[in-house]
Amino acid sequence: MPPEPGAPRHIRLTSHAGGTGALPIRWGAATPAERGPVVGTTMQRGHRNVIGTHSGSYSVYRALAVAAGALARDHRADLTNTSPTDEIGPYPQWGDPERIVSLDPWGATVASAFASEIAAGYDIRPTIAVTKAHVILPEVIEAVQKGRLKPDGQLLTEGGAALVTKAAIEPVWWLPGVARRFGCSEADLRRVLFEETGGMYPELVTRSDLGVFLPPIGGQTLYIFGDARDLADPAVELTARVHDECNGSDVFGSDICTCRPYLTHAIEECIRGAQPASAGGRGGVGLISYSRKEGRALGEVTKFLVYNARKRQVGGDTADQYFARTECVAGVQDMRFQELMPDVLHWLGIRRIHRLVSMSNMKYDAITQSGIEVGERVNIPPELIPADAQVEMMAKMAAGYFTPGVVPDEQGLKQTRGRGLE
Amino acid sequence: MPPEPGAPRHIRLTSHAGGTGALPIRWGAATPAERGPVVGTTMQRGHRNVIGTHSGSYSVYRALAVAAGALARDHRADLTNTSPTDEIGPYPQWGDPERIVSLDPWGATVASAFASEIAAGYDIRPTIAVTKAHVILPEVIEAVQKGRLKPDGQLLTEGGAALVTKAAIEPVWWLPGVARRFGCSEADLRRVLFEETGGMYPELVTRSDLGVFLPPIGGQTLYIFGDARDLADPAVELTARVHDECNGSDVFGSDICTCRPYLTHAIEECIRGAQPASAGGRGGVGLISYSRKEGRALGEVTKFLVYNARKRQVGGDTADQYFARTECVAGVQDMRFQELMPDVLHWLGIRRIHRLVSMSNMKYDAITQSGIEVGERVNIPPELIPADAQVEMMAKMAAGYFTPGVVPDEQGLKQTRGRGLE
Repeated sequence: MPPEPGAPRHIRLTSHAGGTGALPIRWGAATPAERGPVVGTTMQRGHRNVIGTHSGSYSVYRALAVAAGALARDHRADLTNTSPTDEIGPYPQWGDPERIVSLDPWGATVASAFASEIAAGYDIRPTIAVTKAHVILPEVIEAVQKGRLKPDGQLLTEGGAALVTKAAIEPVWWLPGVARRFGCSEADLRRVLFEETGGMYPELVTRSDLGVFLPPIGGQTLYIFGDARDLADPAVELTARVHDECNGSDVFGSDICTCRPYLTHAIEECIRGAQPASAGGRGGVGLISYSRKEGRALGEVTKFLVYNARKRQVGGDTADQYFARTECVAGVQDMRFQELMPDVLHWLGIRRIHRLVSMSNMKYDAITQSGIEVGERVNIPPELIPADAQVEMMAKMAAGYFTPGVVPDEQGLKQTRGRGLE
Repeated sequence: MPPEPGAPRHIRLTSHAGGTGALPIRWGAATPAERGPVVGTTMQRGHRNVIGTHSGSYSVYRALAVAAGALARDHRADLTNTSPTDEIGPYPQWGDPERIVSLDPWGATVASAFASEIAAGYDIRPTIAVTKAHVILPEVIEAVQKGRLKPDGQLLTEGGAALVTKAAIEPVWWLPGVARRFGCSEADLRRVLFEETGGMYPELVTRSDLGVFLPPIGGQTLYIFGDARDLADPAVELTARVHDECNGSDVFGSDICTCRPYLTHAIEECIRGAQPASAGGRGGVGLISYSRKEGRALGEVTKFLVYNARKRQVGGDTADQYFARTECVAGVQDMRFQELMPDVLHWLGIRRIHRLVSMSNMKYDAITQSGIEVGERVNIPPELIPADAQVEMMAKMAAGYFTPGVVPDEQGLKQTRGRGLE
């Protein structure tokens, strides 16, 4: 990488308070003017008012782009024509500092909300983008062919394409609020974030004046079926699923879990929920919230190690040992921590989910404890559970998953056995 | 988070050389004993010989697990029964420090390769896991129903499940080698990695004695159809696709690009390539390498911003403006940088890809320049290209994508127009 003309050669290892020009952030203020913009630029260090930077872990690739000489360090995003296709909010929830702590409610509209700051030279980037798409899933086409779904020409075409509004959301963590969600002090949260990542961002411990952190982790994607504004109206029936990423099933259809079948079932429910009665629908709105938390946020390497340990243990892959094997390898059963998940629902203004397409008690508890009502809970139809995924399903039902049927007992768990490795 | 008994309360902001007990890493040494283990533990600071830690960005979730009091900081993974289901290597490529610079070839077998170091108290974790799976894709079932694929009971069941070996791989970067791939000095690479991430890991610039970095980014997943050992035998026909993640298409089937259709076409080609002649197969082996590089490694927020800019620009979404819109927002057309991608192929011992199911000239160039021969290039069948994805396909063909057909000219690019937003 050729050094750019005039590039400073002095490296400051940790930033210090007292920089000139940084705008304050008053988290949870009701208007963008009071709240102030999130400035994660890597150009004007004095303008930064957060720890970390934009694009999550893709900032590492931005660095490679600079190293390769392909990207100018001072490139500023041209936001012409990029504004959201659908207006979302502002909702009263945006003005409650405890209701939303892990995303920036103004992140989609920075170009308008902070137009004067941008004009004054601040490099302010969207952390949310909202667009429209046509999504075509083989499972939806099959539902049309079998008569379970009926095209309406508006939300569902004759060819089986569903018309959606979708939003990508990057995490923006307000550390005092995140700490309260996890029941620890902000100082302890900052310390473990620094130490357990092997020393990422010393500012976590040196800059207590910076309360906002852009963590280099994956975010969320929303798929909205119907009118996005209806999500905030409790009188309109909302069908919703909060889904955690599972690449092996979501993309490749691995039969060891129910992730893709449950997701595509939820999409079918969302389409039907949003369609007009004339097409056999429920005249409401649908939502899929997809979180990047591969392998229960343990990552795929740990996930595959656990698969091997399950399949090879004495007695085989039985439901009664399902959680134990994950704990042996990872130290915990699950790292998804649904405590932050409801934030995105509050961003959408949601106050009631009429039909929650999830059996997870952890998701249910997190949603209801955050103040959102949940009506019916919709289980995965038994015929969609692959044979080898019965181990996971039975273990989870015994551990508290919602089921309209019988909760398996100890004997049932021991007898539920998956395939071996060979 | 309650502080643990005896936990040190002194925080060191950057680590310094001279710690006792850290084992040396001699990158590219031919045996694990000479190479030495990668130690990214967060427990014994003196044992660490890398920058960063394990599990990519999921280390942030590990921190949350500790903050919530759910995970003991001194938990050590119990690796019983987790070893790879298939033996991969060692291959001569593993002993060439320039051939593999972005993963640890010994990462799958740490429990055996570094058994004595683990017994001596070093916390050494796998960065690769290898398991087996049955994958069931609706597109493969359709191929069986339409007679394009014939179940053989071994690689493809009557129900349409394909039996695979799969591997998850976390990035392990040897910084001197990565710098050479990008044509910059190691010092410049370290500096931009630090600066463009907003100050992640000061050790990048303070600890030039640590040559290995575990970046908090997504890795790769391999799906192998047939015998994994055959990948290293150039006499066995290899069908392969290197695929970059696109959640919107891979999972949700968005019709603006060809990602899922090309991926499922490649899976069909891999199955047929690996099946015996008696089932209409080619008696070879198949490979899908799936890289976590969402939205050309720009992330999904940038991707959706670009979609809006494309759909709203004057003249509509035409192929001649396809790359320009990405550059306006992101500063570059693409950040995937295929320079590191071939490493995983060398880890598998691959010397020849007989049928490369990809039209990308960037992937082709990276693979062949790394010393792997490529025979036939397999394009996506035209009938699998969604109408709205013609914009991308034409723009890419004009920019150098492989096509057996006509390369579109300026007029053709202007006339290829996608759907508007409404």
